[in-house]
Amino acid sequence: MSARESWNAVVLTLFPDMFPGLLGMSLAGRALETGGWTLRTVDIRGFATDRHRSVDDEPFGGGAGMVMRADVVDSALKAATAMQYGVTQAANHVDRRAPIIYLTPRGRPLDQSRVRELAEGAGVTLLCGRFEGVDQRVLEAWNVEEISLGDFVLSGGEPAALALLDAVVRLLPGVVGSAESLSDESFEQGLLEYPHYTRPADWTDHAGIARKVPEMLLSGHHGRIAAWRREEAEKATRRRRPDLWRKYRAALRDANTRK
Amino acid sequence: MSARESWNAVVLTLFPDMFPGLLGMSLAGRALETGGWTLRTVDIRGFATDRHRSVDDEPFGGGAGMVMRADVVDSALKAATAMQYGVTQAANHVDRRAPIIYLTPRGRPLDQSRVRELAEGAGVTLLCGRFEGVDQRVLEAWNVEEISLGDFVLSGGEPAALALLDAVVRLLPGVVGSAESLSDESFEQGLLEYPHYTRPADWTDHAGIARKVPEMLLSGHHGRIAAWRREEAEKATRRRRPDLWRKYRAALRDANTRK
Repeated sequence: MSARESWNAVVLTLFPDMFPGLLGMSLAGRALETGGWTLRTVDIRGFATDRHRSVDDEPFGGGAGMVMRADVVDSALKAATAMQYGVTQAANHVDRRAPIIYLTPRGRPLDQSRVRELAEGAGVTLLCGRFEGVDQRVLEAWNVEEISLGDFVLSGGEPAALALLDAVVRLLPGVVGSAESLSDESFEQGLLEYPHYTRPADWTDHAGIARKVPEMLLSGHHGRIAAWRREEAEKATRRRRPDLWRKYRAALRDANTRK
Repeated sequence: MSARESWNAVVLTLFPDMFPGLLGMSLAGRALETGGWTLRTVDIRGFATDRHRSVDDEPFGGGAGMVMRADVVDSALKAATAMQYGVTQAANHVDRRAPIIYLTPRGRPLDQSRVRELAEGAGVTLLCGRFEGVDQRVLEAWNVEEISLGDFVLSGGEPAALALLDAVVRLLPGVVGSAESLSDESFEQGLLEYPHYTRPADWTDHAGIARKVPEMLLSGHHGRIAAWRREEAEKATRRRRPDLWRKYRAALRDANTRK
């Protein structure tokens, strides 16, 4: 894979040392070394203009905490887009194939279909906030996509950026060995995955309780095993995730109606 | 804060070098240094029993990928609980104040109320899976809580563990300075947070467009600003997260009925 074709991540952060972090190890790390993807950071503090190198200021309207300044983040985004799209592009040109994403609990929750779209694109520019967040105007100025990792609050965007990149990078060609192992997993069919079992078939746990693998899985009957796994996936989804279950059922009904 | 009183995290992983990662920096890192919390890892590979140090095997019933063995993870959990609860405890005793959590897309989605409960407890033991996941029997043997970071798939539990710990640690006493800044943020009121603005009040973006702070925030009228922010928080929640908005409205109706 040539450098031109690789998937390119640019991360704007006040903590560039947090990257690549765990993305420098294991499968993602190997792919980073061999050029399957690239990761560059932009240190937001480098775009502060006063002598204290301030990146934040008090919120208008009062309240606790500090807000990251629109002008500082704007300059950092200009540098990041030059890295991502090349300096010859207009400063306000944003390539839809490598969107700018701000990680914030106010955003749309990340899901596997967005992860897949990002993996099929050219890359991503990730803006990591700290403190109370980023001045809203700079998000509007760049038409930034706001994405949330989930309904919880992190100390900053960095842990979310690592998780998002990890999810995307494993889908890049050649990073995870087998495409087959990807198609069975949670969310690919709108269901949670079925449970897994491996050797030993008869196992006694730490409390002295004997625990056997479900007989079906030892039957060697591939058709029945597939049906059993489907049933287990449906059962888990129904019990654990009524919200996903409703969507799955509605999609099935739609598919049947179209027949 | 004495060591006895600190909040204790134990992480079972095949990649102990991934920790503390970004949790060793910034606010979480400072609290780690001063003993506000502790982080220890258990290398699962250390509990393999064959000469190849295998931790995984092929799934019963066929299919792609490998599954982490119940017996190996069982031994690792025995070591982890001895660290977490002390060696004098029975091996199968799990303190509800420091639960064992397995990070998996099959789990219940993490939310801020679970994060808050964990922060109020004594700590957490986190099991990070790799490959296709962990043999289901060992999860049952330890009555492990299954938690998902969101509806996407990671290369392993480690990025999720970092995010979960980051979310919890920032709520520990003394880690984030101001309790006030925590009560306003997303999810604490069942709403997304309102947008933030800071200096400069008049700002011209990279494309030459003048962008002003909403007038209201410059009015100095605290009551009206609070009402405006509430309205903005409601508007953002309604537009961006109809699911949260329904819950919020239902909770308001219940509260009014009880009056």
